[in-house]
Amino acid sequence: MSDEQVKYTLPESEIPTHWVNLLPDLPGDPIPPLNPQTQEPAGPDDLTPIFPMGLIQQEVSPEPEVEIPEEVREAYKLYRPTPLFRARRLERALDTPAHIYFKYEGVSPAGSHKPNSAIPQAYENAQAGVRKLATETGAGQWGSALALACSLFGIECEVFMVGASYDQKPYRRAMMETWGATVHRSPSNLTQAGQSQQSHPTGSLGIAISEAVEVAATNDDTNYALGSVLNHVCLHQTVIGQEAMAQMAMAGEEPDVVVGCVGGGSNFAGLTFPFVRRVLRGEARTRFVAAEPSACPTLTRGAYRYDFGDTVGMTPLLPMYTLGHDFVPPPMHAGGLRYHGDAPMLCGLVRHGVIEARAYGQNTSFEAAVRFARTEGIVPGPEPAHAIRALFDEAEAAKQAGEARVILLGLSGHGHFDMAAYDAYHAGRLEDVEFSEADMEAALERLPEAPAIA
Amino acid sequence: MSDEQVKYTLPESEIPTHWVNLLPDLPGDPIPPLNPQTQEPAGPDDLTPIFPMGLIQQEVSPEPEVEIPEEVREAYKLYRPTPLFRARRLERALDTPAHIYFKYEGVSPAGSHKPNSAIPQAYENAQAGVRKLATETGAGQWGSALALACSLFGIECEVFMVGASYDQKPYRRAMMETWGATVHRSPSNLTQAGQSQQSHPTGSLGIAISEAVEVAATNDDTNYALGSVLNHVCLHQTVIGQEAMAQMAMAGEEPDVVVGCVGGGSNFAGLTFPFVRRVLRGEARTRFVAAEPSACPTLTRGAYRYDFGDTVGMTPLLPMYTLGHDFVPPPMHAGGLRYHGDAPMLCGLVRHGVIEARAYGQNTSFEAAVRFARTEGIVPGPEPAHAIRALFDEAEAAKQAGEARVILLGLSGHGHFDMAAYDAYHAGRLEDVEFSEADMEAALERLPEAPAIA
Repeated sequence: MSDEQVKYTLPESEIPTHWVNLLPDLPGDPIPPLNPQTQEPAGPDDLTPIFPMGLIQQEVSPEPEVEIPEEVREAYKLYRPTPLFRARRLERALDTPAHIYFKYEGVSPAGSHKPNSAIPQAYENAQAGVRKLATETGAGQWGSALALACSLFGIECEVFMVGASYDQKPYRRAMMETWGATVHRSPSNLTQAGQSQQSHPTGSLGIAISEAVEVAATNDDTNYALGSVLNHVCLHQTVIGQEAMAQMAMAGEEPDVVVGCVGGGSNFAGLTFPFVRRVLRGEARTRFVAAEPSACPTLTRGAYRYDFGDTVGMTPLLPMYTLGHDFVPPPMHAGGLRYHGDAPMLCGLVRHGVIEARAYGQNTSFEAAVRFARTEGIVPGPEPAHAIRALFDEAEAAKQAGEARVILLGLSGHGHFDMAAYDAYHAGRLEDVEFSEADMEAALERLPEAPAIA
Repeated sequence: MSDEQVKYTLPESEIPTHWVNLLPDLPGDPIPPLNPQTQEPAGPDDLTPIFPMGLIQQEVSPEPEVEIPEEVREAYKLYRPTPLFRARRLERALDTPAHIYFKYEGVSPAGSHKPNSAIPQAYENAQAGVRKLATETGAGQWGSALALACSLFGIECEVFMVGASYDQKPYRRAMMETWGATVHRSPSNLTQAGQSQQSHPTGSLGIAISEAVEVAATNDDTNYALGSVLNHVCLHQTVIGQEAMAQMAMAGEEPDVVVGCVGGGSNFAGLTFPFVRRVLRGEARTRFVAAEPSACPTLTRGAYRYDFGDTVGMTPLLPMYTLGHDFVPPPMHAGGLRYHGDAPMLCGLVRHGVIEARAYGQNTSFEAAVRFARTEGIVPGPEPAHAIRALFDEAEAAKQAGEARVILLGLSGHGHFDMAAYDAYHAGRLEDVEFSEADMEAALERLPEAPAIA
């Protein structure tokens, strides 16, 4: 082993004071969300039934920076700043001249980056006097994070959990209940949306979102909380990238490439947007690589169109790469990556060539994750396993080029609640399901009516 | 929320350079381990078949401080220094004037304090050219830690896992396998020890130790590694207390009482011994409270006698509080606390009144753990749940006395692999099994012949 520093830690005083809002920097004309009835740009009024004004203002803010409330910074201290590691053992195992760094969000009590947005969302709702938050969860990461955040700010939490994950990950449910949340298997019989989707027993994030939105829209004292996709969620997550930037400076390096996984895009946005801003402003030349699962390849195979954020069609129309709002991805263990669309801000950056996207199967991703665990110690979640797979490609490319490129990986969470998937991988029982072109064609026919995106 | 500091973090440079060896400070005459055949003090020769000389020297060292090898300090950087938290939300929830701090070891990749000793043990064995380490694990914490450490130093790892835990915690097994270890359910058919104990299908730590020791003793290229009890394990763990002492100084406070849980004693020793030294040298007046399960109440109900460390009787005789080396505790979820004895150094300090011991049932411990999770965010392991239960008593005592006492809690690990136990607790399915006096009487009759301890 080397005697050089492994870990770059920041003091609590270096928790960012502002979130980075990339909205004013985005290339091209703004592409607003639309009200599906009027086809007009959706305004704050479209959101007030389910979101508090504090979050709506963040959603549409034109300011390049948004101040983080002091109470939120206090709660962030439970686990922030998170560490940045230099992965020297992995570098040697890969025999690459690349310098590999990873920013690890698994140190949060919920085990992923999700509390970065759950905390400000619970805070703003508590400030607005809301009694309960309803939400969906895929892998359980977001539901856990919101259950935790609600317990900190004294409000109730009701979670609709995607059926496939509910069955595969009972311990995630027990964790949410330990923090005091109520958890339902989705599709449930508790909502009209759930009743309409009983033909999809494994569920999907889109269905679970419909259920939670319905609960929020039909109960005055209940609001909705979304764990990804929306601007304000991407905004909250930028604490990751800002800290990583300060830590890379401690290491005396600048990333040549930043790699992360994409489900709805919040982890990826959070890590990359502070670096993306530099690129958009001509201050740096950094590449960005988004890794997604080949079974749900939104960015690499989806259509760039207006679509609903949920399956039943209760949300505004969002401009994004989509596999169709009623696409039900096959059950797979990276439950956090089973979403039919992606954050509009992120999609725009892919569209403009600022971010590259790649799709990987789950077996090759778990192979990379096991190798990571055996060198760097941490057992990654199945979601960042896809990013690690992309990282290996980048490290190999650096080797081929003979360049000591600096690669920054987003390790968004640990795999402690995903060991059944590791077990299946070790036993050769994991299947790689390829996305079907026929599915895509059928989905395109069912997209809602909306203007084309330029 | 308050705007005061929540978390005290140290830079990597503050990872201790030495371990604290309390052996030369212990009160009373030394009580050596005995060779069971000769009844003479066991010497290094009794240990060379299963331990490398580097660890044997640490086991018997008379030096008050033992230098930490540089390679071990490097590997510690994966997760050390660990954070110390001020538990302000818990203080408010308990309405106590006490100042509550906790030192959190769950940030290690294995999720507990166990890598603190697994790393130096794997290192010393690798230095000695050993090809494989055999060990036992109860809750899976130690087995995970050793699997991780062996992967870092390139040696093989074979784990005998207590049957009850193997069945309750399949994901701990998958985690060990992810780090490359081989895991057997104990009692197994692979050893004579295991074959002799098939009438105890749920197993025990004592049985699993017998199996692993047998594998090490009968294979030249294989050594044994123990996760607790022995002097060198307690020694390694003192990085916890040394860091905590530096962090309490950052907070500008001195603990009035230090609280931890005890299974074999390594976590408790690691946290307390640096503080105990101050007390033994007359430099401080700190109380120490050891919390154990009422179903396996070694320190509160056991006999202070020479006994084997394992069930079959392969180890030297150790002077300790024991429930009898063939005691098979009832299956319970705090698998890490199911051991019939305790570290001799710790037992001596209990005997001399330096450390107090208390036993708690698992329902009251889980109740405390859930309250902790809902205020401080972290879901505790079932083992430290017992310590949290004791902490609540101390916080209440401070309130009754109207004193702002400073309490330091050892939070030795998280409960991510124990959610089935939380689930059982939430559903009211956890049973509190009381230790039986008849068991104790029967055990005393089966203790090995040995001199009484003064």
